[in-house]
Amino acid sequence: MPETSADLDRVLSRIDADLDQSIERLFATLRIPSVSTDPAHAADCRAAAEWHAADLASMGFEASVRSTPGQPIVVGHRREGSGPSALFYGHYDVQPADPLELWEADPFEPRIVTRPDGTKEIRARGAADDKGQLMTFVEACRAWIAETGRLPLPVTILLEGEEESGGASLPPFLEEHADELRADIGLICDTGMWDRDTPAITTMLRGMVSEEVTVHAANRDLHSGFYGAAAANPNRVLARVLADLHDAEGRVTIPGFYDGVPELPERLRAEWGGLGFDTAGFLGEVGLSLPAGERAYSALEQTWSRPTAEINGMVGGYTGPGFKTVIPAEARAKISFRLVFDQDPIAIREAFRAFVRARVPADCSVEFHAFGAARAVAFDTTAPAFAKARQALTDEWGRAAAYIGCGGSIPVNIHIKETLGMDVVNVGFGLTDDRLHSPNEKYDLRSFHKGARSWARILAELAG
Amino acid sequence: MPETSADLDRVLSRIDADLDQSIERLFATLRIPSVSTDPAHAADCRAAAEWHAADLASMGFEASVRSTPGQPIVVGHRREGSGPSALFYGHYDVQPADPLELWEADPFEPRIVTRPDGTKEIRARGAADDKGQLMTFVEACRAWIAETGRLPLPVTILLEGEEESGGASLPPFLEEHADELRADIGLICDTGMWDRDTPAITTMLRGMVSEEVTVHAANRDLHSGFYGAAAANPNRVLARVLADLHDAEGRVTIPGFYDGVPELPERLRAEWGGLGFDTAGFLGEVGLSLPAGERAYSALEQTWSRPTAEINGMVGGYTGPGFKTVIPAEARAKISFRLVFDQDPIAIREAFRAFVRARVPADCSVEFHAFGAARAVAFDTTAPAFAKARQALTDEWGRAAAYIGCGGSIPVNIHIKETLGMDVVNVGFGLTDDRLHSPNEKYDLRSFHKGARSWARILAELAG
Repeated sequence: MPETSADLDRVLSRIDADLDQSIERLFATLRIPSVSTDPAHAADCRAAAEWHAADLASMGFEASVRSTPGQPIVVGHRREGSGPSALFYGHYDVQPADPLELWEADPFEPRIVTRPDGTKEIRARGAADDKGQLMTFVEACRAWIAETGRLPLPVTILLEGEEESGGASLPPFLEEHADELRADIGLICDTGMWDRDTPAITTMLRGMVSEEVTVHAANRDLHSGFYGAAAANPNRVLARVLADLHDAEGRVTIPGFYDGVPELPERLRAEWGGLGFDTAGFLGEVGLSLPAGERAYSALEQTWSRPTAEINGMVGGYTGPGFKTVIPAEARAKISFRLVFDQDPIAIREAFRAFVRARVPADCSVEFHAFGAARAVAFDTTAPAFAKARQALTDEWGRAAAYIGCGGSIPVNIHIKETLGMDVVNVGFGLTDDRLHSPNEKYDLRSFHKGARSWARILAELAG
Repeated sequence: MPETSADLDRVLSRIDADLDQSIERLFATLRIPSVSTDPAHAADCRAAAEWHAADLASMGFEASVRSTPGQPIVVGHRREGSGPSALFYGHYDVQPADPLELWEADPFEPRIVTRPDGTKEIRARGAADDKGQLMTFVEACRAWIAETGRLPLPVTILLEGEEESGGASLPPFLEEHADELRADIGLICDTGMWDRDTPAITTMLRGMVSEEVTVHAANRDLHSGFYGAAAANPNRVLARVLADLHDAEGRVTIPGFYDGVPELPERLRAEWGGLGFDTAGFLGEVGLSLPAGERAYSALEQTWSRPTAEINGMVGGYTGPGFKTVIPAEARAKISFRLVFDQDPIAIREAFRAFVRARVPADCSVEFHAFGAARAVAFDTTAPAFAKARQALTDEWGRAAAYIGCGGSIPVNIHIKETLGMDVVNVGFGLTDDRLHSPNEKYDLRSFHKGARSWARILAELAG
């Protein structure tokens, strides 16, 4: 077998030696503003897909860009060896960069910033989410191929372009190409470390269902003097809906919302309790101090094992400089629910819509636009791949890897589990200060470098 | 006395005969884009002021353009006769014309449009608000002077240039020139008819206090997966504040808000009841059907004699196309309160701020920006000028003039009342379909023509 310990040492040395070239390749994809939610960037999304397909082809992958009704999907195969096979998933699309004025430099002109302590970070939109992370896996493969002429096990790489914009094209794509894509284990690099020095495997992720709500009132904007009070104000209607979503205890008030939400299993409570989560530090880092969720739960449980309702955006009326005494014709909000355990996104979407309709006056109307809907996921960590990945991470970082939860949603997990019948090992090297979805997003150079080394080790362990 | 019935008849005939020239003069001022809120139009505002001063001088007024820290103010005097004196107020500035693409023709190239029924309207920005209205008074003066060589009473004309942009320069100007400007009665032409055939005197106008509120939470935008529930969401905080402003009965809940708000005096209730206000028509014209204010009051009372809280604008988080799972760092709202009777705008501003602060979590902060604050005004209609103006209007239109309220605010009323100690008779010829502040603003030619005739009669009555 080629995956000897000597092979792995050479592969790790190659990763170290080629770091500058790895960074250059990452910068090349970071320069492409592949903002999937904005139709103006459709050509950029395709350019990013083509860049990744060409990159994989250059490593001997049988790679192609597959068109979908939305953004294209990149698929690459190297079907060597007879060991267990792996399907790696990443996403090449990124969040919008606005508000642009808060960036210290062009979000699509990546650069290395050296911190006062001499450590470095990669700054760009997508540096962490997910281009930097997905490239840790790609660079690990590249080093294996460069040193040994092959990968330790058959690998398929699947790169999506709609992760930040609902991901509607992926589930049908997985269904249609299930035979082509199915493998023994799924691998995803889109999560974080437990802390700066402790690697982690994320075994639970929240699901999500999201909606845009538009309340329509008068058939045109009105003067708030002549019509004020008498005419329905959609801002007021919407504010009532949004405020009613939570009670004074921080619980979501939509009927049936907590169906399928058990108390935290004792095993997880013990494991998480051992992590020594620092609530004050977690909130303090972003300038806050009071957990804002359900009062009965800790901040860690609020983000990992409890469902939420968040108002991600709201707008209505005049919001520019100065003042305009208008009663607008409409007001809009974007609302997302993070789901846990067995909550049913479709049932919650329907319950939410009924909740809204009940609060809209009879002479107003409401319009809903559905965005993504995905169940939460929790993997059974007794599957052997988890122990192997944990060992590889522990070897690289010199600390026992943690099994953790995650407040975010990576819907592909549930799609891979349900459509392809596979478990997924989520390993990522993000840190809590990466400013995902925010201005000045970064990825530690150490995460990028040791991330590639970690994957090189994981591939060896999985093949063993 | 020169104000004999024969004189008046000749003056009215002169107005009829000179209508085309009157229109030409109105067109000349309408062609000047005196948009006061836009610094790019500062020279146009001065040009408009100079045009009006020259026009008044040509009629024998001692007229001048007075500089202020903002737009200039025009003052013209004719100090003849010994009867009661009048101060007429109008404003030569106009609203911005955007959205330009919704205008059927250049907003600053006035034209006459003939409707299918043969009646005509004057189309231009400012046609009604307020150049067309103020010129009804000027043309009435011109006809009196042309026919009789004098006005029936001493008249001062004051034309402001910041009515559409905060009006900051007027109150100190009134104070500084109080002795020069004080008269026995104020006259303003910036309001509307009761309906197309029924003239009106507006005897009550709402005041207003307006605020912008910004809720700050985390020190940056957050990912709603990683922070959702645990981190305070300023959209949620703000929605709670905004929703709490009203109770289920539509009453404003700010403590002390209704201090100084009596039930409608019986005399007004009777007068308004006799107007036969068509609630269904009023709301139906804008696509609504249910009065949205305090349940205990009619739509007419809601807009004329009850105070309101309106959310004129709100914004927070991602509001563009698609979806962004962000918890924003801040959320903002613009809120205005229309005031009635003796409500104190300063006390209400303070009570509102306390109300907001009580709803902001301890780890968030709130910032306030004060916009205008003006008391409501209600004139005592037993002053003789009201009965005289009412008689003149009734004579011209063949229908009893109505005493009405107005939901809007014309702050100069309270400034004249408080600074100069005068009552003001608000007579205007606007109609509800004039599209004030909107594209394709118009003023009925009939309003312009009979408006001038009405003022000619009012001047005679007041002098009598």
